[in-house]
Amino acid sequence: MSGKNVLIVYAHQEPKSMNGSLKNIAVDVLSKMGCSVTVSDLYAMNFNAVTTRNDIAGDLCNPQHFSYGVETMEAYKKGCLCEDILKEQEKITEADLVIFQFPLYWFSFPAIMKGWIDRCFVQGFAFDFPGCYDTGLLKHGIIHFCGFQVLAPQISYAPEYVSEERRKEMLQNWSRRLKNIWNEKPIDCTPPWYFH
Amino acid sequence: MSGKNVLIVYAHQEPKSMNGSLKNIAVDVLSKMGCSVTVSDLYAMNFNAVTTRNDIAGDLCNPQHFSYGVETMEAYKKGCLCEDILKEQEKITEADLVIFQFPLYWFSFPAIMKGWIDRCFVQGFAFDFPGCYDTGLLKHGIIHFCGFQVLAPQISYAPEYVSEERRKEMLQNWSRRLKNIWNEKPIDCTPPWYFH
Repeated sequence: MSGKNVLIVYAHQEPKSMNGSLKNIAVDVLSKMGCSVTVSDLYAMNFNAVTTRNDIAGDLCNPQHFSYGVETMEAYKKGCLCEDILKEQEKITEADLVIFQFPLYWFSFPAIMKGWIDRCFVQGFAFDFPGCYDTGLLKHGIIHFCGFQVLAPQISYAPEYVSEERRKEMLQNWSRRLKNIWNEKPIDCTPPWYFH
Repeated sequence: MSGKNVLIVYAHQEPKSMNGSLKNIAVDVLSKMGCSVTVSDLYAMNFNAVTTRNDIAGDLCNPQHFSYGVETMEAYKKGCLCEDILKEQEKITEADLVIFQFPLYWFSFPAIMKGWIDRCFVQGFAFDFPGCYDTGLLKHGIIHFCGFQVLAPQISYAPEYVSEERRKEMLQNWSRRLKNIWNEKPIDCTPPWYFH
């Protein structure tokens, strides 16, 4: 716990939102446990969610026929991805625990989050997304595929439709869980042989 | 066919890509059939994929606690959404057929497309996405939920891994299908009672 690095990737425009409160609680609880907590506040950073050729800092391999996948892979190998992506990759590489904190709308993901996942090659240890629905797509798909071991999601259903009391309970549940987070075991995802 | 309005929402950075070719063929075939074809080229338009409070042109209902859903709904009713969203909504309202043309990556959607869906209230007649995988999530979820009747997707699997000949076949198949597109019946989606 003490000395562990935590990265919270946070995407919400309203600090007083449920997402904002869940993020604040995580910073508070984990810091008190002696963890070093970094927050990537995507809206505050004005993080660019759209994948473009500007994501490659150097020359393109094939400027005549641009392929995002090919070009970013080459740029990644040469360390030529653009500055904002490199910075986020560095944070993720250093993190022992990554928490994605953002709303997950019904049948949909916030654009900024999606873009962020698209644009980063991630390596890390564990993943959790509180305050949102449990979707197999994100959890078992993208995140695990990116090399994460995945913890069970923390789900706070429809906080805008429940009582103030219930909302406080949601925050307490999250706080309680975080105190034991380093003892949690990853959930089962797609088996490793799938990627060989 | 003649006199029908078609909107193609196109998101790819490389005009020489399979997506670019599929888009060009659709413009060509549908124009020759007498349709009026409009292309929203999202990359060329530099379309902003991120949902922010700038999407609301007038005053906010509650600037002390920003809720994107509440504020955009109110702005929609008052006609106070920002200019680029209003423009796209107008195109969709006028369209008899909307074609989304963009790559759909494995377990993932391109950020810009996602953002676009998030940010537009859509009304329309039919929907089809060529050049990508068939995902129930998009087809039955977001698109139908937005009020579209949905046509079967046109899928061109992994065009970068097949022969030039097979790629030409993919284009021909799309061209052939488009010639009969106005006779197609929508596929079954979530039943209407679900939304009552």
